[in-house]
Amino acid sequence: MSGAGAFLVPKHRLEALADGVFAIAMTILVLEVKVPELQDHRSAQELLAHLRHLVPTLLAYLFSFLFLGLFWVWHHRLASKLSQLDVPLLGLNLVFLALVSFFPFAAGVLGRYPTNPATLMVYLPTIGLILLTQWGTLELAVARGRVEATAPPAEVLAARKRNLRACGIFFLAAIPSALRVGLAPTVATLLLGIAFLIALKRAR
Amino acid sequence: MSGAGAFLVPKHRLEALADGVFAIAMTILVLEVKVPELQDHRSAQELLAHLRHLVPTLLAYLFSFLFLGLFWVWHHRLASKLSQLDVPLLGLNLVFLALVSFFPFAAGVLGRYPTNPATLMVYLPTIGLILLTQWGTLELAVARGRVEATAPPAEVLAARKRNLRACGIFFLAAIPSALRVGLAPTVATLLLGIAFLIALKRAR
Amino acid sequence: MSGAGAFLVPKHRLEALADGVFAIAMTILVLEVKVPELQDHRSAQELLAHLRHLVPTLLAYLFSFLFLGLFWVWHHRLASKLSQLDVPLLGLNLVFLALVSFFPFAAGVLGRYPTNPATLMVYLPTIGLILLTQWGTLELAVARGRVEATAPPAEVLAARKRNLRACGIFFLAAIPSALRVGLAPTVATLLLGIAFLIALKRAR
Amino acid sequence: MSGAGAFLVPKHRLEALADGVFAIAMTILVLEVKVPELQDHRSAQELLAHLRHLVPTLLAYLFSFLFLGLFWVWHHRLASKLSQLDVPLLGLNLVFLALVSFFPFAAGVLGRYPTNPATLMVYLPTIGLILLTQWGTLELAVARGRVEATAPPAEVLAARKRNLRACGIFFLAAIPSALRVGLAPTVATLLLGIAFLIALKRAR
Repeated sequence: MSGAGAFLVPKHRLEALADGVFAIAMTILVLEVKVPELQDHRSAQELLAHLRHLVPTLLAYLFSFLFLGLFWVWHHRLASKLSQLDVPLLGLNLVFLALVSFFPFAAGVLGRYPTNPATLMVYLPTIGLILLTQWGTLELAVARGRVEATAPPAEVLAARKRNLRACGIFFLAAIPSALRVGLAPTVATLLLGIAFLIALKRAR
Repeated sequence: MSGAGAFLVPKHRLEALADGVFAIAMTILVLEVKVPELQDHRSAQELLAHLRHLVPTLLAYLFSFLFLGLFWVWHHRLASKLSQLDVPLLGLNLVFLALVSFFPFAAGVLGRYPTNPATLMVYLPTIGLILLTQWGTLELAVARGRVEATAPPAEVLAARKRNLRACGIFFLAAIPSALRVGLAPTVATLLLGIAFLIALKRAR
Repeated sequence: MSGAGAFLVPKHRLEALADGVFAIAMTILVLEVKVPELQDHRSAQELLAHLRHLVPTLLAYLFSFLFLGLFWVWHHRLASKLSQLDVPLLGLNLVFLALVSFFPFAAGVLGRYPTNPATLMVYLPTIGLILLTQWGTLELAVARGRVEATAPPAEVLAARKRNLRACGIFFLAAIPSALRVGLAPTVATLLLGIAFLIALKRAR
Repeated sequence: MSGAGAFLVPKHRLEALADGVFAIAMTILVLEVKVPELQDHRSAQELLAHLRHLVPTLLAYLFSFLFLGLFWVWHHRLASKLSQLDVPLLGLNLVFLALVSFFPFAAGVLGRYPTNPATLMVYLPTIGLILLTQWGTLELAVARGRVEATAPPAEVLAARKRNLRACGIFFLAAIPSALRVGLAPTVATLLLGIAFLIALKRAR
């Protein structure tokens, strides 16, 4: 399956797969919201009490749905900057899609145990990895000359800076959660955040 | 991730995501119809008795499927009036899609407890919110100048009037159900219905 | 939501929704094939014994998958004959898609209770209704003048005859199963089969 | 439903269905990763212990996701060589898609019982059959003259050789696993591997 010469996948194929994966991941989120089991099928009071218990899950659902929507917009914005996808870019984007379809699991843990401090150790790293693959996609495309020829350099630079800023802010904001886990993750998160902000300063 | 200058998403990307979300929401409806557990695997009588019990669930399934189909047609009809999507229009449409993929849960509650008066407090507000996001999308597009240049003004006005009429009729029709919940929701529903009918009168 | 003037949905939109519904219905089939629960997680013998029990379910899965594939091909072949979809054609096609996404349930009942005579009373009517909506779509398109202008009349006639033959053969072949249910369904099935064969004779 | 004259399905329709099936199969993989049940909903320690147990399942998930991604790339690469699909090519591709949507089940068995030697008897034959349908598609297209006219013969030959090499290597690599099952499967696997390598030598 190793390519002879440069093997390139047209961008619109990946976008069709990504649209499918996002649509399904968004819709699967709601599968975690289970129809409650009632003792008395006709009791409005019992059903309402169950629904009241579902409110945090519903909010986690809406929140995660909008998060996925944000990633979807970001992904298409990035893809509009690329020309074609070679094997490393494709690999990175498949990891990105794997993380996107893993997101409903992370959202399910958060929706089920909102008060458990360990849930953030699933949710936040998932978001962090999604951010990293998105940042990496554009950097890799620039390094490998796979940027769309019609995209103005100033716009590509602005997109790279947006990515660096988003990653930097996210990792610094994740420090309070990392502190609860231990010293090593905290230091790693801090260093990642600083590294992105330094890269942001230097990007041109 | 905040855009420099106006950030616009091409309409066909949202339509691809919407087609995916609708197709999945429609197909997930049927997951609520469970294969019955039989004591005697070969007993036709037992299976038929179980299937007879499933009839209300099946009707709720078909009904909800057609409802989603109606929303899908309506959504595409609306989208044909828009040119491109800016951030507020995109946000509103993501909320719309979140409600669409929440619909199978509401349909599941209705299919499982058809005789429970509280089920309508899940089903009707979901439909109401879907109607509101659709109405809001067109109004927002008109207000922000995102209406397709080729769409004749008379057609856009007719579409807006259809939305206002649909919302007005829906909220007035929901009053008997609101009465069962309490005074405050009844008054809110009544006021919403009247407001839409007044807006319909004044629309031009 | 009632249209002013003729409201038409472009065909490619319905095809996108249909592709989504078919892809999901096909993939959901396999959700009925459950990972077996083992007492001893490392026992190859126990896992193989469970897998051997799954063989009928797997065959039902493959069979139903190919059936859906056949309907998918047939649907696209039919759609290629249509120009645009008005409200009655759209409604009929939404019922068709509702039946397609109901198919995994029917396949699940067949895969779970292959020896139960009542399973055919779920599976066969589902297929029969799918055939009827497909036949009806083309007849309705002919009657309402929604046939693609570039489609040669001889080809449209051949397609209509294929539909009539398929329906006629299916209903006659379903008589032995109908006999097990009772006299009324048997007579209805017989009359339907004969009606389609007479229509086939007269079609021109 | 038997065609009058050659019945051909345009390639882009199959690609749309394939994109849908792949997107769903990839996303369904994660449904096997269940949100753990906690005794104490607020205990971080308990949640972390459960998550640690999920690590092999998560790795199996990522591994299977990337495998499906690889098949997706391969499928599109193959499809780019075809012109249109006649009935045998369509049938073979539906079997291919049936295997792809069966893949989450095989991945689920592997993720649940990674130490059970019999899991490979589900996982490896599934991959083997996927490879065989892909190899068969191109060979059939060549034999039936359904190769894209614009595809250079040297590229088609290179693609066929890649398929033969992939099949040959896979079957030889599967021999150690076949040995655990019995003599007959081992001999069959060995012969298949040798046959593909001989075909590779002779292909021109």
